[in-house]
Amino acid sequence: MAGSNTPITAGWFFFLFTLVGACCGLLYTVFQGDGEPLVASLAFSGIAFAASYCLICWLGDEFKRVGFKGRDRSKLDRKEIPETMGAVCAVVYLMVMIVFIPFPFYEYFYVQTSGGGNRDMTVEMVETGRKLHRFPHNKLGEYLSALLSLQSMAILGIADDLFDIRWRHKLFLPAIAAIPMLIMYYIDFGVTNIVVPLPLQAYLGEMVNLSWGYYAYMAAIAIFCPNSINILAGVNGLEVSQSIVIAAFIAINDLLYISVKGHPATDSHLFSLYFLLPFLGVSLALWCHNKYPSKVFVGDTYCYFAGMTFAVVGILGHFSKTLLLLFIPQIFNFLYSSPQLFGLVPCPRHRLPHFNARTGLMEPSRGQFIHPPRWPISVALKTLAKLGLVQIWTDDNGVVLEYSNLTLINLWIVRFGPMREDKVTLGLVGLQVVCGVLGLFIRHKAALLLFPYDNLKLQDFEGLGLPVV
Amino acid sequence: MAGSNTPITAGWFFFLFTLVGACCGLLYTVFQGDGEPLVASLAFSGIAFAASYCLICWLGDEFKRVGFKGRDRSKLDRKEIPETMGAVCAVVYLMVMIVFIPFPFYEYFYVQTSGGGNRDMTVEMVETGRKLHRFPHNKLGEYLSALLSLQSMAILGIADDLFDIRWRHKLFLPAIAAIPMLIMYYIDFGVTNIVVPLPLQAYLGEMVNLSWGYYAYMAAIAIFCPNSINILAGVNGLEVSQSIVIAAFIAINDLLYISVKGHPATDSHLFSLYFLLPFLGVSLALWCHNKYPSKVFVGDTYCYFAGMTFAVVGILGHFSKTLLLLFIPQIFNFLYSSPQLFGLVPCPRHRLPHFNARTGLMEPSRGQFIHPPRWPISVALKTLAKLGLVQIWTDDNGVVLEYSNLTLINLWIVRFGPMREDKVTLGLVGLQVVCGVLGLFIRHKAALLLFPYDNLKLQDFEGLGLPVV
Repeated sequence: MAGSNTPITAGWFFFLFTLVGACCGLLYTVFQGDGEPLVASLAFSGIAFAASYCLICWLGDEFKRVGFKGRDRSKLDRKEIPETMGAVCAVVYLMVMIVFIPFPFYEYFYVQTSGGGNRDMTVEMVETGRKLHRFPHNKLGEYLSALLSLQSMAILGIADDLFDIRWRHKLFLPAIAAIPMLIMYYIDFGVTNIVVPLPLQAYLGEMVNLSWGYYAYMAAIAIFCPNSINILAGVNGLEVSQSIVIAAFIAINDLLYISVKGHPATDSHLFSLYFLLPFLGVSLALWCHNKYPSKVFVGDTYCYFAGMTFAVVGILGHFSKTLLLLFIPQIFNFLYSSPQLFGLVPCPRHRLPHFNARTGLMEPSRGQFIHPPRWPISVALKTLAKLGLVQIWTDDNGVVLEYSNLTLINLWIVRFGPMREDKVTLGLVGLQVVCGVLGLFIRHKAALLLFPYDNLKLQDFEGLGLPVV
Repeated sequence: MAGSNTPITAGWFFFLFTLVGACCGLLYTVFQGDGEPLVASLAFSGIAFAASYCLICWLGDEFKRVGFKGRDRSKLDRKEIPETMGAVCAVVYLMVMIVFIPFPFYEYFYVQTSGGGNRDMTVEMVETGRKLHRFPHNKLGEYLSALLSLQSMAILGIADDLFDIRWRHKLFLPAIAAIPMLIMYYIDFGVTNIVVPLPLQAYLGEMVNLSWGYYAYMAAIAIFCPNSINILAGVNGLEVSQSIVIAAFIAINDLLYISVKGHPATDSHLFSLYFLLPFLGVSLALWCHNKYPSKVFVGDTYCYFAGMTFAVVGILGHFSKTLLLLFIPQIFNFLYSSPQLFGLVPCPRHRLPHFNARTGLMEPSRGQFIHPPRWPISVALKTLAKLGLVQIWTDDNGVVLEYSNLTLINLWIVRFGPMREDKVTLGLVGLQVVCGVLGLFIRHKAALLLFPYDNLKLQDFEGLGLPVV
């Protein structure tokens, strides 16, 4: 069992050492200068990368010892490797985010205090009318509640990896973890109005108040993001790669807003970046170990954690619709999977593609009909097969016996033929990138067909008095 | 292995059902009335009790399956029973505390909002000069940071129970978990002045600013409370019982303050009660299963979690010195243990008392000298033995061969003779109660010899303008 720890090579050691040194240097300049939080966040992300990389190397054997281990079914040797390494990333991430707490609020620290009261009351006394100097407790509250939600998700994810919670139960774990964030939204913001798309404004007016429906919507986002990443999984490196791509696109969208000087949503998008940069740090470290051929597995913890991070920044940053545009492959995969998930057609225990040991290539895995399917199912499958959206295997009478499992991964292999595992991941990540570009395009160009303004353009936005959605 | 789950008897089922019903009724009155948070807290504590009780019953086999199990060394059959059940309590507690978030702030909810901004800014607009209507974001921040610390402690505690972290490492886990709370203290309160005791005021003045020393002090409290409970353990039910007694005494102290109408520290002590009542709820449920003869073990998770709860309320409630007065047995046990903890005399792997299978009684366990001890150690042990504070076993030449392990539990058995396990627990819990009464007496009566006022008395306190310490 011993010897499963990955040694850190001299090259990596040198790189990590240099990286941490550079990050410490960056932090030093932050402390010397006017405390630019984004630079501090970048430095912490580098440190988080190094810490995660090393810990994943060092903890492999320990994880296997306590039972966090699994066999890679798509390899010839089916070696047992450590699992649930996402928990390491989650813990490192949370620690970095906790230490980072003071930085976004640094600029408010120079307020004179009279010594003895809390800052809020003191500031009120010395307030000179400039809103800038009021300590933004509501932002701090949002930050803390986001951390609480992510930490809850980490605990529940670890519990899931430990106890193998049943599928229909674990679907709702993210909803539990989202409670701190939703409660904080209720206490501190409470805006449940949404802007009505132009074609519907004649019937509904410009804005409509969804009331508790908006909370249901947010809970649905929180449930969807983690679970959709969790079900688009099964080939080496895919969970981490797709998360990295999504995080990168959200970050790009954030940068678009931040680059518009004086944009009212700057704070929300800075907030989003503070959460995403360290996430990219720990995820890249995990990717180095999880990429084909995987030396560790990420576990449900990582999928939940990653999805929850996106849900948190999307909800608290008020860009949940943009977020969904970056989840196009996941949404497709969910819809495509739904006949199996909801039991319309048989769903085997594992739906990951089948490894052909002779060719070394991945082939579509199959769902089997024990009894011949009823005619609507049969017709639907045959139609999909004609459209090239599923592969079916029939007997001599044309009765469907087997069909390729309804996941995006299998579909990819059905369309492009058997291929090596790393090529599958590469293809799907490429698809994610294409969809991301498309999503941002829709958000900032095509959305003008549906909404009266693109809130990225300050001149369109100002004076409307509408919330940034 | 199956069948280790404890069935819920009909009597218990009826009791729990009634309890939850009554609590739901209480919650209903809270929603109907003016939302008294203390009543809501009481109701949630009852629900937390019922939930913990049931989950501990139901999850026994699952916990054993994943390796959370241990043998009771002080029983004839040495049966394997589930361990780390404190994790269940911690998770239930955290969920209840998260759902409870809006209640303490309910009174601020009736503030008119203009719909579209956050409450803080809105309130400023409609503010009429009454401070009461300002949303207390700093209190909310304290609450959230306390939850973050407790949740971090739960994660690290579970990691400890899972991976058996080394003694010298795990000592500092609570310091890591305390970071959110300390950072929040830094951001939001930042008071590092302490009142100087009367005899020293001639030299130091009335107040002294400890600056970063105060943070070191708070971190020390956070390290001490969890670890001191963790090392006063080893007989069935002791960890939970002592925690319940300490929590009850802090709650009594809180009630003393709250009963003084208009006391400036009312909010801090209400805050403390909100954290302690659900803690008492989950702890009593755990106690029902952990009391002699134990059906489950609590794990390090519980000890850490309990200690951290006390540290959190003590630090954020600004009564850390009072807190230490309630930890007298733990402080004594720590000092008494220190020669073994710091390696002055040999320390065996386990120091829990020895179970004599023939008599069924607990006897002091022994540390052994492999080489004869050096003379200062020998003299010290013999002196302690004459004072009745340790039992020693010598050879014919008077060289100390063995000595009773230096824990309060062993000392109790040395003083009062071998006794059954439950009697040991009962005696030590009795001692904890006596010390608690003594501690509160010192705090509110004898402290007047050292400090210029007892801050419980409003007339002594008002006009001094001093922080509540």
